[in-house]
Amino acid sequence: MAIKILNKEKKNIAVGDIVIGQDPVLISGPCAVESREQLIETAKALKDIGVHILRGSIFKPRTSPYDFQGLGIEGLKYLKEASEITGLLTITEVMEEKYLEEVAEVVDIIQIGSRNMYNYPLLKAAGALNKPVLLKRGMSATIKEWTMAAEYLAANGNENIILCERGIRSFDDYTRNTLDLAAVPIMQKETGLPVIVDPSHGTGIKSLIKPMSLAAVAGGADGLMIEVHIRPEEALCDGKQSLTPSEYGEIVKALKDMNLLER
Amino acid sequence: MAIKILNKEKKNIAVGDIVIGQDPVLISGPCAVESREQLIETAKALKDIGVHILRGSIFKPRTSPYDFQGLGIEGLKYLKEASEITGLLTITEVMEEKYLEEVAEVVDIIQIGSRNMYNYPLLKAAGALNKPVLLKRGMSATIKEWTMAAEYLAANGNENIILCERGIRSFDDYTRNTLDLAAVPIMQKETGLPVIVDPSHGTGIKSLIKPMSLAAVAGGADGLMIEVHIRPEEALCDGKQSLTPSEYGEIVKALKDMNLLER
Amino acid sequence: MAIKILNKEKKNIAVGDIVIGQDPVLISGPCAVESREQLIETAKALKDIGVHILRGSIFKPRTSPYDFQGLGIEGLKYLKEASEITGLLTITEVMEEKYLEEVAEVVDIIQIGSRNMYNYPLLKAAGALNKPVLLKRGMSATIKEWTMAAEYLAANGNENIILCERGIRSFDDYTRNTLDLAAVPIMQKETGLPVIVDPSHGTGIKSLIKPMSLAAVAGGADGLMIEVHIRPEEALCDGKQSLTPSEYGEIVKALKDMNLLER
Amino acid sequence: MAIKILNKEKKNIAVGDIVIGQDPVLISGPCAVESREQLIETAKALKDIGVHILRGSIFKPRTSPYDFQGLGIEGLKYLKEASEITGLLTITEVMEEKYLEEVAEVVDIIQIGSRNMYNYPLLKAAGALNKPVLLKRGMSATIKEWTMAAEYLAANGNENIILCERGIRSFDDYTRNTLDLAAVPIMQKETGLPVIVDPSHGTGIKSLIKPMSLAAVAGGADGLMIEVHIRPEEALCDGKQSLTPSEYGEIVKALKDMNLLER
Repeated sequence: MAIKILNKEKKNIAVGDIVIGQDPVLISGPCAVESREQLIETAKALKDIGVHILRGSIFKPRTSPYDFQGLGIEGLKYLKEASEITGLLTITEVMEEKYLEEVAEVVDIIQIGSRNMYNYPLLKAAGALNKPVLLKRGMSATIKEWTMAAEYLAANGNENIILCERGIRSFDDYTRNTLDLAAVPIMQKETGLPVIVDPSHGTGIKSLIKPMSLAAVAGGADGLMIEVHIRPEEALCDGKQSLTPSEYGEIVKALKDMNLLER
Repeated sequence: MAIKILNKEKKNIAVGDIVIGQDPVLISGPCAVESREQLIETAKALKDIGVHILRGSIFKPRTSPYDFQGLGIEGLKYLKEASEITGLLTITEVMEEKYLEEVAEVVDIIQIGSRNMYNYPLLKAAGALNKPVLLKRGMSATIKEWTMAAEYLAANGNENIILCERGIRSFDDYTRNTLDLAAVPIMQKETGLPVIVDPSHGTGIKSLIKPMSLAAVAGGADGLMIEVHIRPEEALCDGKQSLTPSEYGEIVKALKDMNLLER
Repeated sequence: MAIKILNKEKKNIAVGDIVIGQDPVLISGPCAVESREQLIETAKALKDIGVHILRGSIFKPRTSPYDFQGLGIEGLKYLKEASEITGLLTITEVMEEKYLEEVAEVVDIIQIGSRNMYNYPLLKAAGALNKPVLLKRGMSATIKEWTMAAEYLAANGNENIILCERGIRSFDDYTRNTLDLAAVPIMQKETGLPVIVDPSHGTGIKSLIKPMSLAAVAGGADGLMIEVHIRPEEALCDGKQSLTPSEYGEIVKALKDMNLLER
Repeated sequence: MAIKILNKEKKNIAVGDIVIGQDPVLISGPCAVESREQLIETAKALKDIGVHILRGSIFKPRTSPYDFQGLGIEGLKYLKEASEITGLLTITEVMEEKYLEEVAEVVDIIQIGSRNMYNYPLLKAAGALNKPVLLKRGMSATIKEWTMAAEYLAANGNENIILCERGIRSFDDYTRNTLDLAAVPIMQKETGLPVIVDPSHGTGIKSLIKPMSLAAVAGGADGLMIEVHIRPEEALCDGKQSLTPSEYGEIVKALKDMNLLER
């Protein structure tokens, strides 16, 4: 038995032409891929404000079986096209082993979402991929459980792991989740891996995304994942917590004003 | 859109020769199927004290990838043999869609564990089975999320659902989890489904299993799932929270003394 | 330094003509003392169904400063009169050191409420009284913190302590609090003191009070504290979680049917 | 009934020669006032690195009655002397109404600690003082409860309130508390009051204080309260989470590098 990632030296993850773990990486895009037009229009706007990686779910884990579940594999071609047009790298979530390879052929990073952090068979399968994995924290995962979930990836051969703090469940329901920013330096120290922050799910409230983005990067986060929609009021999911590209641009500007992002 | 289970009339679930939802059902067995001998010996002892259904995991979701992960499909034949010898019905957990059918051919109830309560693809697949499903509460699942997870099963055609409260995550780590017994009458009312309680995982402390078993049934639980091992000190998992068959027998006796179980 | 109560032998607390720690003690009454008539009428009805101790707050700790704060010292005389008429013992909450002695001259048990479990100056002062104290668990108090709060009483000379589990704060707001019934046998073992349960605050939902009362006593609780109002719809506080005397009577009957209360 | 502070316009609090609510205010000092020498030496070092307000408890609310409870009123003269020597403003916690006036004559801000956020009689009394009050969040206080606790002060006449986020209780015990930085912009919006952050209690881990300080101020906090001890290894309380003045100086420098503090 050998713990591969625990207390390891700092490790950067190269993805395409960027290196995660150095300057803050900006990941953004809509909650869900809704259509070709929506995704490409969003991608262009995000490219303009300096985003590096386009997110957009094709499989949506929804609390209700009657809510929009995502376009499925059809959405993959839109991610590919948006990437080709803009040069943005891409990330999307996979919930089932059977889709891992097909999706990994197209996108640059595979996301394992909060609801699947304890899905060990999926982690084992993703550990066998030759593709970086972004592993979100489970909604009530302890530091140890999250570390060991990453270890499932590492133990199966994949150490190209990016961690993502996205808020935990607490007693207060004012916010959707309680963003645990101390988890950023903790996980960096425990694993050596880059840790990014998702203030969209971490708060669920539009007006909190800017202050929490600044707080996250000032506190050492290796990047941000923020939901952006070109027309938030029409979004099929998470519209209330989605920024417009222009609102996102204000965050980028503020990060530069604090010398936290290169001009 | 139609919510199938919400606020439904009380529903009993027939499994083999028993009916869950009437007298308290007793489910018991080891954390993991470890060997043919261990399982059969345990099953015989459990049969003697009035247990109805034998549990035993062949797939174990473990926090660490280096811990014992279960015997896998090999263990299935031991469950089958133990059932044939004792007449006990059987239940085991499945974590992957690809094993659902093979396991469902042998056991009487498929268990979806806490870590997979949010695994919607797995729930959809289990919803397509013609086999009762025991759905454990996620470790920080709200009443609504748990209800909607059951709805994933119902929406896909399977309304033979048994719910299982197994403790939730709270701020206090004195116990392994905080057993939320109020969830029993709440979920019975919200769904009409039978709700059983797992005081073994719900407390993680041997001395608390008897009082919490009595509390659960007195509070209206439709049954108990308790981990029993013939030699707890040798158990490959959960030894510290496993009762001996004799300790289990004392719980059965106390339930009878309270007129909560038929003599 | 000597821990006085930790892991002590079981200790019963004599109050008037009853002994807490033997048969389950029934404490009941309105959330607040509202008027002479309300209290006396309630006390008579409670006496008839077998209650031992009358509760009723004269000081109310309310989240909002604009909510009804209690009758204050004026209410004390109603408690006294209700006790004289019915023979019931009495308990009421004190939040300030300056009222401790005056109240202790009239009532049989002083209550320290959840919001004051960490109020160490108040605990020290109550520790100097020659009067039993009922110490409620703080809303997010760990087992250790609760034990040490009791120790503040003991260290100052008062070991006549009754503990009361009243629900803790968790992530789910379906109920007002999450009733932690495992805390009953835990605190009994840790301190040797009697532990009673308050299912009214522990759930905040009328329909859950009966099942949780039965669960509590079956799980070993030394008694119950339940809010009862003769006309719950007119109550100045906690009306929604208040039972009528008749509904309370059904709980008493069910406890007898389970052989948990003497007939 | 009038809610005085809810959704009010932004309000700055003048204390001595500073204004809280504009540039970040730096509050620092030892957990407890231990001796004249310790406090004066600390105050001088803090003055040198730009701290505005000296903290130091003379009354310590401790979980165990056998732990150091503070010097009491004796410590007040050391606070006074340290202030006279260095020109620093002072703050200290009061837990009992009977000491409020005596302490308010000496210090510039009265602190109500987490354990007393629900101590409404104390809040009413502090509301009658003509002295700014720093109100810490209770360890599991909701946004609403915290807001209404502040309202207890305002309703009794004192609107000179500074709020302090100091971490909440969550399921993970890796840190002492879970620092809820989103509470900063939330409470600023809900009340209009300045909100500062205490990363010392908010994490309990020395190495996390710097990143969480930067995160707090970047996220909009109106100041920081950080525990500093000249010899942390000798501290009578909270030594493990206390910084040296030199370590504190690094935080001040980093805040200036981010343009978050005037040079």
